[in-house]
Order: sequence, then C-alpha cells, then structure tokens
Amino acid sequence: MKLAIYGYGNLGRGVEAAMQSNPDMELVGIFTRRDPATVVSKTGAKVFAADTISQFKDEIDAVILCGGSATDLPELTPMLAKDFCVIDSFDTHANIPQHFDAVDAAAKAGGKLALISCGWDPGMFSLNRLYASAILPDGKDYTFWGRGVSQGHSDAIRRIPGVLDARQYTVPVEEALEAVRSGAQPELTARQKHLRECYVVAEPGADKRAIEQAIVTMPNYFADYDTTVTFITAEQMQAEHSALPHGGFVIRTGKTGRNGEHRQRIEYSLSLDSNPEFTANVLVAFSRALGRMASRGQTGCITVFDVAPADLSPLSHEQLRKSML
Amino acid sequence: MKLAIYGYGNLGRGVEAAMQSNPDMELVGIFTRRDPATVVSKTGAKVFAADTISQFKDEIDAVILCGGSATDLPELTPMLAKDFCVIDSFDTHANIPQHFDAVDAAAKAGGKLALISCGWDPGMFSLNRLYASAILPDGKDYTFWGRGVSQGHSDAIRRIPGVLDARQYTVPVEEALEAVRSGAQPELTARQKHLRECYVVAEPGADKRAIEQAIVTMPNYFADYDTTVTFITAEQMQAEHSALPHGGFVIRTGKTGRNGEHRQRIEYSLSLDSNPEFTANVLVAFSRALGRMASRGQTGCITVFDVAPADLSPLSHEQLRKSML
Repeated sequence: MKLAIYGYGNLGRGVEAAMQSNPDMELVGIFTRRDPATVVSKTGAKVFAADTISQFKDEIDAVILCGGSATDLPELTPMLAKDFCVIDSFDTHANIPQHFDAVDAAAKAGGKLALISCGWDPGMFSLNRLYASAILPDGKDYTFWGRGVSQGHSDAIRRIPGVLDARQYTVPVEEALEAVRSGAQPELTARQKHLRECYVVAEPGADKRAIEQAIVTMPNYFADYDTTVTFITAEQMQAEHSALPHGGFVIRTGKTGRNGEHRQRIEYSLSLDSNPEFTANVLVAFSRALGRMASRGQTGCITVFDVAPADLSPLSHEQLRKSML
Repeated sequence: MKLAIYGYGNLGRGVEAAMQSNPDMELVGIFTRRDPATVVSKTGAKVFAADTISQFKDEIDAVILCGGSATDLPELTPMLAKDFCVIDSFDTHANIPQHFDAVDAAAKAGGKLALISCGWDPGMFSLNRLYASAILPDGKDYTFWGRGVSQGHSDAIRRIPGVLDARQYTVPVEEALEAVRSGAQPELTARQKHLRECYVVAEPGADKRAIEQAIVTMPNYFADYDTTVTFITAEQMQAEHSALPHGGFVIRTGKTGRNGEHRQRIEYSLSLDSNPEFTANVLVAFSRALGRMASRGQTGCITVFDVAPADLSPLSHEQLRKSML
C-alpha cells in the first residue's frame, strides 16, 4: 500500500517512524507547506511541496493528514478527499458532525473513501466507549485523561504576559478512579475527575503571583479544576518536560442479572511515552483498513466505528482466527 | 429483532436476563433438551422442546446457542446454521479453525449467517489482541485470566476419588502483571503467570493428603502451577464459593519512534461478578450485528473480527458519532 504524509510536525514524523514497523506500507513522500528544500526526512523519504500533491493522484493509495484540528484539517481534509483516499485525526469533539458532513460530501463527489477522527481520543477510546456500552447497556462510562501533557492548556498558559514557556499535565484523580471502579457510578464534577499541574518558565522580573492568579482563574481551562503552578528554569523545562507523554482510562461499570444483582467492569487504558507517535501508529493501522475498504468500492466518509477489526491487520482471516481468537 | 435461546443453563439464563436491557430485542422462546414442562422461565418466556425449533424458521431472526463447547456446540452450531442465523460462544481455542469450517459450510449451504466464538475469551479479549497488535506491531502481548472460577479445573478436581465438591480459582501473579506493564516484555512460564487456588469438600474419612497430592501433581491442569489446596465444609462452599466471578487482562507493550525510543502500553481488563452473564451480554450485543449483517445479505461464518463496531449498538451512526466518538 502506497501512503503519503501531508504535514510534517510531531505527528507526521510519528507516521514516518511507524511505517518502519509495517512492511506492507510504502511511503511515496512527505508533502509539506514549508519549502521542501528546508525539510530533511530522517528516513530518507522524498519531500515535496504540498501544492504539488495533485500530480501524484495515480501513485498514492491514501494520504495521512498530519495537520492540526483547529484550522488545518477542517479545510484540508475535504479539499483532498475529492482526489485521494484520506485519513485524519480531527479531534475537536464538538465539531465532528460538521467535519464529517463536509468530508463525506467531498469524498462522495470524488468517488473516494475518507476516515476521520482516528487516533486514541477520538479513536481507540471511542471504540471502547461503544463496545462497552453495547455490552453493558445498563451501565455508565467514564473517560479519564492523563497523566499527560495537554498542548491546548500549555498554549493557553504561554499566552499569559510574562510567561516564556509552559507545560501543563492533566492528571486523573486517584480517588475518582477508585470510586468509578467500585461500580458506585458516582456523579463527578470536572474538579473531582482531574487535577492540572502547570510548570512555568517566567521572564526575569515577572510577577509570578500575578501569573499564577491568571492561570488558576482562567475560565474553561483552569478555573473549574484544582490547579498547581510550579515555576522552573528553562533548563529544567528542557531536561524534565520535553517529552509528550499521555494516556488515560475508559471505564464502564454495569449491572447484569435478573435483578441487576451482578456488577461487571470493563476498563481500557493507555500509558504512552509519546502521544503523537501512538496516534501515528493508530493512523497507519487504520490506513490499511481504509485501503482495503476503498478497494472494495466503498466511498464517502467513515469513522473507526465502521471498520471491521480484521481489516486493520496484515494477517489473513485464517491466521487471525488461529493466532488471536 | 426476534431471538431464540437454545440451551437453558447459566448462559441461557444470562441471555434471558440481558434481553431485559435491550428493548429492541424480543425473545421468541427458550428451546431446551429437557422436558419443557419441567423448565420454568423466570421472565415468563415460552419454553419449547429443542427438537421443535425447525417449526419456528419464519419467526426467529437469530438463535443464541447456549450449550457447552466440549460436545454440544461442535454438533449443534453446524446443525442449526443450515436453517437459522446462529451465534455461539465456542471457546476451545485449539479447535476454532475446525469449528469455523464446519459452521461456514453449513451456513453457506443454507444461505444463513453464523457468528462463532463470541464471548470474552474468545471474544472481547481476542478483539483487544487484534487491535493492539495492529497498532503496536513492534510489541508483545500477554493475556492473564482471573481472579476467577475455572469450571474445567473445578470439574477436574471433582473427578478425584474422595472429593464431594470443588472450586478452583485462577489468579494472575501480581509480580508478572507488573513486569509486563513495565514494558520489559519478559518471557513468562505458566507458573510465573498464574496461581491456582483450590477449595475442596472431601468425603468424611477421605485421605486429604492423597487428594491434595492428586491435585497438585495432575498433568496439564495443576502440575505446572503453584497450587494451593484448602479443605472446607459443604456449608462454606455454599456460602463463600457459589458465585462465578472471573475477569482478566490483555496487555500489549510496544515501542515506537525512529529508534524504538518510546514505550507504549495498551491494557484491557474485565472484572466480572458473573462470568456467564457477561458472556451472555456479549452474545446479545453481537446478535444485533448478526441480524443487521444478515439483512444486508451476508452469509457463511464470521467472528468478532468481522463485525464493524457500529453494528453492535442500537444507536444510529449519527448518534454514535455525536455521543461516543
């Protein structure tokens, strides 16, 4: 299967690395909106200007879009879906229906297949919410994120005057996890579910008290959470906080039996040293399915919910039944 | 959707209870090989003799087979697959390819769809092995079972002379779980992964030392494990060991990044008060998919690997994208 990477940030580099472990995949090239002459692939892949991709229509089976959800993907995915099978990790949950409709219309117009919102949340966490709710209809599920770096929250801190750099960790509250696991099905506020730990490098002479107040009172981002702010040096930031770990939990508890007398718990969790590389690996596995489903003539937009798991694996149905069932 | 239950033991009763939480399902009846007059349904379902089921061909969308894997299902599933869409929880892993072929031939001959080996292992654990291996190809997965009652091991103890009753719990070794979670990808023997706890009611005057020796040296079942044997009274057995809890873990760790520098972990776990009722709930959810796939004209034998997750849910695709993605 011949793949292209469109966008070459952390996610694009993760996809490039993931392809090394998927020998049935071939990387046609990396398409970048920067000057291709300034971009060097560490695996020796070819680098092309983004706006030349239409010349590669016959050479690419699927394009993995590695742009951001805020402004890139809402424009790029529908644009490319007319000419290519595309897959993205669009993760603005509230706007998924709207993004789906735009991509679906474009893909159908071009007779192509597109898969959106494919990563871990949305993505693998979504799948686990679906499976668990179908199996335990008389139940309730909870999603916890972390411990991990939230890019959006880190960016929000960096916009505060006097802040040079910042890293925000989202941390699930252990007591909340235990309450959920017990099957008690508690109602939990945002504050009860997650803590927010902030590490901040301030400008020399900045008013640290004012920065801390600006953080902990920031609406939507921090005001509804117990937030800690720790000031560190630029050297500490580089040494201790340059990785992008993440993870989380999807837990559903439910009751079964004639009188709901038995408690059942399903838990799915991820512990990731690198959030973008894991998302990249999910994208590559689902690209395989995208290619197979497209070759069976399917068009329009789909999500992870529409993919039969067997299509993700390089193994045959017979091998899967024998080795994994 | 109109379902029938074929076989009315723990699993059949679990399916009957599960249908209460799935209002889009209707129970046509329970088919039993016992005298139907002696079987009373607690939900007031109709009970019929098993051999009359062929009279119900036009009234049943799918038959949920609730027999045992040792002797019932290898015969029943192919037999009924000619005339009905069927689903079973056949769980003898080594014989799945053979069972698949027999059911596939029968279902294709009758133009029906069949889904085999659908429960939690095989079933949800299989799905998690597949998803995780597709996402982290450079990795290794481990399945642990328990803490829970193994019926097969309990039965094996009951066959020892002098034993009146027995219950065997399979227990994952905490140190092994931690070693796996660390990402070290250890090679583990059977003994290192699981303990076996046995509770035994002996006949009055029986040689307990001989019973214990017979258990701990039993090939395949116990000889390769650290096994504890505790003698209890029939009253204790009834009071403390009459439930059928189970559960377990599927954990895959893998490496990503250009030089495999990042460790990633995916973990799926179940904690079940009632093993048969959970299996029943999985069967009912997959019955929904079976009915939908059959109505789209699909025939032959499939497994959980072939089912797109959206088909498991009573919600529409739009609702799923909006509420769960």
